[in-house]
Amino acid sequence: MQVKVFLNEDEFPKQWYNLAADLPSPMLPPLGPDGNPITPDMLAPVFPMNLIEQELSQERWIDIPEEIKALLYRWRPTPLHRAIHLEKALGTPAKIYYKNESVSPPGSHKPNTAVAQAWYNKQFGIEKLTTETGAGQWGSALAFACALVGLECKVFMVRISFDQKPFRKAMMQAWGATCIASPSNQTQAGQDILKRIPDTPGSLGIAISEAVEAAVSDKTGKTRYALGSVLNHVMLHQTIIGLEAKKQLKKIGEKKVDVIIGCAGGGSNFAGLAFPFVADKISGKDITIIPVEPTSCPTMTRAPFAYDHGDTAKMTPLLPMHSLGHNFIPPPIHAGGLRYHGMAPLVSQAIVEGLLTPQALHQTECYAAALLFAKTEGIICAPETSHAIAATIQEAQKAKEEGKKKVILFNLSGHGLMDLTGYDNYLAGKLIDYPLPEEDLQKSLESIKDLPQAPANKTGKW
Amino acid sequence: MQVKVFLNEDEFPKQWYNLAADLPSPMLPPLGPDGNPITPDMLAPVFPMNLIEQELSQERWIDIPEEIKALLYRWRPTPLHRAIHLEKALGTPAKIYYKNESVSPPGSHKPNTAVAQAWYNKQFGIEKLTTETGAGQWGSALAFACALVGLECKVFMVRISFDQKPFRKAMMQAWGATCIASPSNQTQAGQDILKRIPDTPGSLGIAISEAVEAAVSDKTGKTRYALGSVLNHVMLHQTIIGLEAKKQLKKIGEKKVDVIIGCAGGGSNFAGLAFPFVADKISGKDITIIPVEPTSCPTMTRAPFAYDHGDTAKMTPLLPMHSLGHNFIPPPIHAGGLRYHGMAPLVSQAIVEGLLTPQALHQTECYAAALLFAKTEGIICAPETSHAIAATIQEAQKAKEEGKKKVILFNLSGHGLMDLTGYDNYLAGKLIDYPLPEEDLQKSLESIKDLPQAPANKTGKW
Repeated sequence: MQVKVFLNEDEFPKQWYNLAADLPSPMLPPLGPDGNPITPDMLAPVFPMNLIEQELSQERWIDIPEEIKALLYRWRPTPLHRAIHLEKALGTPAKIYYKNESVSPPGSHKPNTAVAQAWYNKQFGIEKLTTETGAGQWGSALAFACALVGLECKVFMVRISFDQKPFRKAMMQAWGATCIASPSNQTQAGQDILKRIPDTPGSLGIAISEAVEAAVSDKTGKTRYALGSVLNHVMLHQTIIGLEAKKQLKKIGEKKVDVIIGCAGGGSNFAGLAFPFVADKISGKDITIIPVEPTSCPTMTRAPFAYDHGDTAKMTPLLPMHSLGHNFIPPPIHAGGLRYHGMAPLVSQAIVEGLLTPQALHQTECYAAALLFAKTEGIICAPETSHAIAATIQEAQKAKEEGKKKVILFNLSGHGLMDLTGYDNYLAGKLIDYPLPEEDLQKSLESIKDLPQAPANKTGKW
Repeated sequence: MQVKVFLNEDEFPKQWYNLAADLPSPMLPPLGPDGNPITPDMLAPVFPMNLIEQELSQERWIDIPEEIKALLYRWRPTPLHRAIHLEKALGTPAKIYYKNESVSPPGSHKPNTAVAQAWYNKQFGIEKLTTETGAGQWGSALAFACALVGLECKVFMVRISFDQKPFRKAMMQAWGATCIASPSNQTQAGQDILKRIPDTPGSLGIAISEAVEAAVSDKTGKTRYALGSVLNHVMLHQTIIGLEAKKQLKKIGEKKVDVIIGCAGGGSNFAGLAFPFVADKISGKDITIIPVEPTSCPTMTRAPFAYDHGDTAKMTPLLPMHSLGHNFIPPPIHAGGLRYHGMAPLVSQAIVEGLLTPQALHQTECYAAALLFAKTEGIICAPETSHAIAATIQEAQKAKEEGKKKVILFNLSGHGLMDLTGYDNYLAGKLIDYPLPEEDLQKSLESIKDLPQAPANKTGKW
C-alpha cells in the first residue's frame, strides 16, 4: 500500500488559485479611515504595486513566475502522507491523508508566501522588508525568504517572545535578518509606548505599528512591509498546498475527498489547503470543509462578520471579516499563531456563504491529539497544527460510528520542534483551557460598534 | 537545470552495504577484558542476537526487511540537492551536491539506524530499550523509533544537557520515552557517582554505564541497550544514505563523483554516505573521501589506531579504532555529536588502509561556513554538519584555483533548529577555538598504553 506521494518537477503547479473569482458574492472592499473603499495608491507606501494588484485581483488563475517556482522547488512539492498508523490506532474505516508542510527549512507553510512576497518586492526595486512576529514563525520565514532573494529584513518581535524564545531570534539572525524587541526606540510608535509603559511586554498590535512605520518612514522609498496571513495575496500564494494535494490524491488513485481540515488563526494555511477544494464545493461537490480555531479565540464560531481593523492600534484599513474586535486579547494558549482577533476576509466570506463548517477546540484536547499523532505517525506537530489533528480524529471517529469509508485530508502546517514548551507543560499536567465568557466577548465586540458596518443585506446572509 | 532529485518507492534500496566485506584487510575483533576476542554470547545480555550477527557479519549485502523499509519510507528517500546558490556565491566551477538527512521527523540521520535497531529488538522479543544521550539527538531518534515500533524507551541524558536543553527531553517524552538525568539513583553506577560527587554535571561515559546497567540488570530479560554510532551494525544501517545518493546522482545524469565529505564524531553519518563510494575506491576509482572532525577532538588526524574502550568507565569491549584515549575530555564545542574520543572501527580501519583523507577544522570557521550555507541554500544546519560544509567550501575553492569542474557530494546530516545557541554565540562574537596542545594529547593517550595493542604489522601500515 502506498503511504506517501511525491510529485515530480514537471507536475509542479504552474498557477495559483484565486478563490475571489469563484465566490458566489463579490468580496467587499477594504475601507479607509473615512469609510470609503481604499484605492491601490493608498496602499503603495506599504506594499509594492505588483502585490497590491494581486491583492485586488479577480482573476481565477495567476501564473507563478518561473523564479518563484524555483524558490518554492527548494523544498516543494511537499509530501502527501497517508496516516495509516493513526487510522489503525483509531480503528476507523476512514482514510486519513495529510499534507506535510513541516519539511520547509523554517518548518512550516509560511515560506510559501514569504518567498513570493520577497521576490515581488525585489522585482519592484525594493531593497528591504519590515515585518512583525509574535511567536516567531512568520519572522523566521520572511528572514529565510529575504536571504534567498537578496533583501534586507527587519523583524519587530514582541518583547515577551523575544525574551522567552531566544532561539527564534538566532534563527532569523542566521538568515541575516535583524530582529529587535518591540516596542523599540527605533520608531515613534515604539517610543510613545515605552514612555508610557517602560516595562511593557509588547503586543502584536504594537509590533505591526512599528513595522509599518519603519517601512513607510524610510525616505529612500526602498522599504516595504510584509504580512504573513489575512490578506488575499497571502491566501493566493498558499494555494500551492491544495493544488499539489489534488495532484497527489489523483496520483494515489483517490477520486474523492469527503472532509478537508486545517487550523485557522489568520487563515493562511487553512486557505492554502482548502480553497482549491472550496472551488469544487461551489461547483456542486459534496465536501465538508472545516477550519479549526481555539475555543479561547472563537473568531469564526462566535464573532460577527463585520468591518474591523487588522491591528490593535487601528493602523490598517478596515477589513470585512469575522472579528472578535481589535481590542480582543486572547488568553495565553500555546498556539500563538491562532491568537488573532480577526480572520482572513476570503475565509470569512466563504463562511458567510455557507461553504465552510468552522469548529472550535480546547488546547488540552488538541495536545492529546498531537501526542497520539506523534506516537503513531512520528511527527511532533506545531501547537497550531494540533487543532487540525484533533478535528481530524473527531471526524475519523464519526466515520467509525457511521461505518463510512470517508476520505479525510488535513494540513500538517508545521512541526513543533521550536515550540516544545507547550508539550512539556501538557505532559506535566500544567495546561488549562480558557472558555470565553459571553460577557467578555460582548465587551470586546464593543470596539467594532462605531465602525462602518458590513452591508448585512448584500447576500442576504448577514 | 534540475536542482533536486527524489527517488520513487520502487527505486528504494533493497539491501544495506557492509564495507567489512570489501576492506583489503579483515577487521580486527573486539577484545574482552582478558584480551581475548569476545564471543557473540558475551554480547547477548546487551544486544539482541540478530543485531549481534549483523555486527559480526562479513556479508557484503544484507537484505533490508520489508517492515524496516516501510519504517524508513515514512521520511525516506531523502532529497539530493544541488547547491547551485552556494556554488554561485563561491564562484567555483565545482558542482556541489548534498544529501538532505534533515527532513526526518527528529531532524537528523540518526533514525536510519534507530528504526532498524528498534525493529530487530522487537523481532527478538525485546520490550524495552535503554540508551544514553548527550546533546539529545540520538535519544530523540531512539524515542521516535520506539514509538513507531512499539517498544518502551528509557534515555539517560547527561545531567548538564538535561538541565540546559529541556526541549530535547520534551521531544523524547512526546514520543512516549522516559528521559532521566544521569547520573540517577536508578542504577548502582549512578548511585556510586552521586555519593562521591552529588553535584556532578554527569558525562556520556557515566550515562553509558547507567544505560548498559539498566539493560543487563533487568531480570525479565526483555530489556536491551542501543547505541547510535561507532558499531558495525550502525554503520551498516546508515549506508542507505549513500546507496540512495548513488541512484539519485545517476538519475540526474552525474556519472562520476570526485569528492565525498561528511562530518565524523562516532562516524555513522559519514560512513552512511561514504561507504558505498569507498567500495568504488577499493575497486580502483579515483575519488577523495574526507571525514571531517573538530580540531579540538582530533581522533582521526592525531590519534593512533589502537585498542581502546568505547566509554570512559571501561564497560565496553576493547575496540580497534583511532582513539584519543578513553579519558579524553573534549572541550565544550557546540558540535556535541563530534565530542567523542574514539572513531568507528570500520572508519578507523579504512583510514589505516589509506582509503580516507581525514581533515580537522575549528568551530569558528565551521560556523562561518554554516552561515554562508544558510544564506545561500536556506537551511540552518546542525553544528556537527557545519564541519562537512566548511570542508566542502574548501574543496570547492581548491577546484576554483585549479580550474577543475569537480563534483563534490556532502552529507547534510541534520538541521540546527534545536541547537541555535551556538549560532547565537557565534554571531555575538563569543565563540572561541580550542587547539589541542601536544602535551595534553600525550597525557590522554597514556590511558591506552596498558591495553592490548593493535597488531602494528597486520597490514604493514600501522
